[in-house]
Amino acid sequence: MRVNDRHVSFYYEQDEDIGDINIDPKKTALLIIDMQNVFLRRPTENGKSEKELIGIKRWKPFYDKIENIVIPNNKKILDVFREKGIEVAFAQIECHKKNGSDRSLDQKATGFNELLLPKGSEDAKIISELAPIEDEIIVTKTTDSAITGTNLRLILHNMGIDTVVVTGVFTDQCVSGTVRSLADESFKVWLIEDACMASTEKIQANELEILNNIYCHVINTDELLKAL
Amino acid sequence: MRVNDRHVSFYYEQDEDIGDINIDPKKTALLIIDMQNVFLRRPTENGKSEKELIGIKRWKPFYDKIENIVIPNNKKILDVFREKGIEVAFAQIECHKKNGSDRSLDQKATGFNELLLPKGSEDAKIISELAPIEDEIIVTKTTDSAITGTNLRLILHNMGIDTVVVTGVFTDQCVSGTVRSLADESFKVWLIEDACMASTEKIQANELEILNNIYCHVINTDELLKAL
Amino acid sequence: MRVNDRHVSFYYEQDEDIGDINIDPKKTALLIIDMQNVFLRRPTENGKSEKELIGIKRWKPFYDKIENIVIPNNKKILDVFREKGIEVAFAQIECHKKNGSDRSLDQKATGFNELLLPKGSEDAKIISELAPIEDEIIVTKTTDSAITGTNLRLILHNMGIDTVVVTGVFTDQCVSGTVRSLADESFKVWLIEDACMASTEKIQANELEILNNIYCHVINTDELLKAL
Amino acid sequence: MRVNDRHVSFYYEQDEDIGDINIDPKKTALLIIDMQNVFLRRPTENGKSEKELIGIKRWKPFYDKIENIVIPNNKKILDVFREKGIEVAFAQIECHKKNGSDRSLDQKATGFNELLLPKGSEDAKIISELAPIEDEIIVTKTTDSAITGTNLRLILHNMGIDTVVVTGVFTDQCVSGTVRSLADESFKVWLIEDACMASTEKIQANELEILNNIYCHVINTDELLKAL
Repeated sequence: MRVNDRHVSFYYEQDEDIGDINIDPKKTALLIIDMQNVFLRRPTENGKSEKELIGIKRWKPFYDKIENIVIPNNKKILDVFREKGIEVAFAQIECHKKNGSDRSLDQKATGFNELLLPKGSEDAKIISELAPIEDEIIVTKTTDSAITGTNLRLILHNMGIDTVVVTGVFTDQCVSGTVRSLADESFKVWLIEDACMASTEKIQANELEILNNIYCHVINTDELLKAL
Repeated sequence: MRVNDRHVSFYYEQDEDIGDINIDPKKTALLIIDMQNVFLRRPTENGKSEKELIGIKRWKPFYDKIENIVIPNNKKILDVFREKGIEVAFAQIECHKKNGSDRSLDQKATGFNELLLPKGSEDAKIISELAPIEDEIIVTKTTDSAITGTNLRLILHNMGIDTVVVTGVFTDQCVSGTVRSLADESFKVWLIEDACMASTEKIQANELEILNNIYCHVINTDELLKAL
Repeated sequence: MRVNDRHVSFYYEQDEDIGDINIDPKKTALLIIDMQNVFLRRPTENGKSEKELIGIKRWKPFYDKIENIVIPNNKKILDVFREKGIEVAFAQIECHKKNGSDRSLDQKATGFNELLLPKGSEDAKIISELAPIEDEIIVTKTTDSAITGTNLRLILHNMGIDTVVVTGVFTDQCVSGTVRSLADESFKVWLIEDACMASTEKIQANELEILNNIYCHVINTDELLKAL
Repeated sequence: MRVNDRHVSFYYEQDEDIGDINIDPKKTALLIIDMQNVFLRRPTENGKSEKELIGIKRWKPFYDKIENIVIPNNKKILDVFREKGIEVAFAQIECHKKNGSDRSLDQKATGFNELLLPKGSEDAKIISELAPIEDEIIVTKTTDSAITGTNLRLILHNMGIDTVVVTGVFTDQCVSGTVRSLADESFKVWLIEDACMASTEKIQANELEILNNIYCHVINTDELLKAL
């Protein structure tokens, strides 16, 4: 089954079973993934080397999209969930040990993967625009999948949640891993295409096409809010 | 194999393979289970009904043992682990939601099982004598086993830990569940008999005999500290 | 809450909330644990050394109880579940590798714990009286808990099962570990006291008292069958 | 770190840390994913409707690649692993119940996702060219990730395995899910690009680029065999 005509891959091109966007708010949670300072805050150019400036320039379209579209849409969705009393959960990369010894292997690697985000560090914090309030659920992980590395699956099950609306970064990494784990654990998953992002639009498009209809249905913020 | 002559059950009575207490500090973590105000603080008798006073009296031997033996031994062990730089972890029952909706089923039951310990509540706090410091690991759970309901197994594995020294309450419940899970996950487990406690000495003795040599080796604080 | 007056421990002695035995067959599975040749078949005395004969004699009351009570009750329960079309599952200790390298640590230990039960070996087989038929679920494990070491939790969840009736051996080991894991995973658990057994009646009584009302309700075969 | 110049995505384009392909055979297992009749056997055209024939034609390039490249490379790798005595494991989609009630939610969906592969059915079997022998490990799952839906993580850990070589189908689905889960569980992962396949070369290329250097290193059969 598919619910719209976007991001349709080879597997579902010939599928004519078009369904509705049905979401039961009482059994649904919003899961906002890794919307943390370290990933979303545009680095300052002051005092940077030429090589670093090239790196910053490469990521400019990403930060533009995050600031203009992804954060505002997350905020819009979050406001509606809070207003309607629908459950909200946050996943966050954070390690316990200052030296990062409890991180999973790939976060100890070199290059882009390397992440040292000890508990309570400024970099690890969820961006202020989306800061959790009251008793909203926060799970911390040193994995990419928010299911593999936390007790979120059990908590959601205890709460009677069987449907998860997913947003956040990066679409091809922690978002994809979480969507796949949620599907494997028999949750219904809705991925919000204009509230998640990969490093580039090309990777974003590729990953959405791979995930869509197989592990989740990819819809946009408007479609989501209309369905609630 | 067994390492001493205490708490030997039917299964190991005829086992003549007596081993040493070998613990490699570099691969070892102390895990202190549920040493929280709600379980360990002797309730005040002021303003209580007669029925409640009977309840308090039944638990007097438990609180005496906790105050005179279990807390001091935990403190002694904790001090040595900190001094020697051996890893320390705490497990704690705590739910995310104020209404407890994320609790596992038995914590939503009536009677002794029923527990509502929302994040940050005074009751949920680890007792001040054993309060975690710096970047010591704290995992929160709504389960009894500290493995089933948290990501502790993965974290310890990432840290290169293969041996766990267990203390806390209640021996027959969260301690037993955790010891069994740790053994199933191939950790070597040492349970410290004078640093853990059940509600009564009879249940304590029964559970230690059941666990010993099958899932862990039961030793005392002195034996542990000599081996480190 | 408790449902009868047997095996009541310190924790529930003063609990006056007496409930009914309510079991919804559509959401229930029977889980028969480790009823395998290796544990249940009385060893032959032929050609045994004097020391081995002493060992066999120690276990005589166990085998008597297994043959006269535990197997017949399991058979009776199994027949009713099959007749009524209620789900049936079996857990079984079995390793993949002939040399047992995939076993969890405690099954590689010496003494009673040591178990080498490769896939397909006669010892590993479920006893013929209770042999699985058709598409009844069989999970194999190298752990004690049938939840920690298998995908049973996910399978039962996919099937809409939220209640598990548990029987098998040994009450204080694989049965206890499984009951605790099931409770942690929010299943309702019914443990059938005359369809499970520990090595001795003393350990059986101790473990039933520890588990009852905390992690499950301990009932007998008659009470179970009346409730279905 | 990256180990070659192929399938390099935006995240690692500027990474100049080029490493060697180091694989320790004693700590390594080959994991062959879902190489089952249902996915790999070219359907017969006899007696098919026109619409079905269009469907078969769409998949022709896939079956060609599978027959000419993917199966031969898997066979070649399998032979070397067996010859050198390196561990071999197979993952396989298979459900317990004839009616599929134990399947995860997405395998109960309509369209491409829908899969009913009961235990022992011809469709579920691993293709004869790669049939497991002796005590090679086989795990069955109703999930996409071979880690989420089985006990493979625990088994590999018990065996002292910390490195997994992955092959199979479909690269963007069960292979990707498994690679991501393995990385989250701190295994080192090597994905063999000419021994795995997605439905189309475009999806194959997209997924390899997404996974490479983040969750695994993508190498080819020749590079793998040289390194063993």
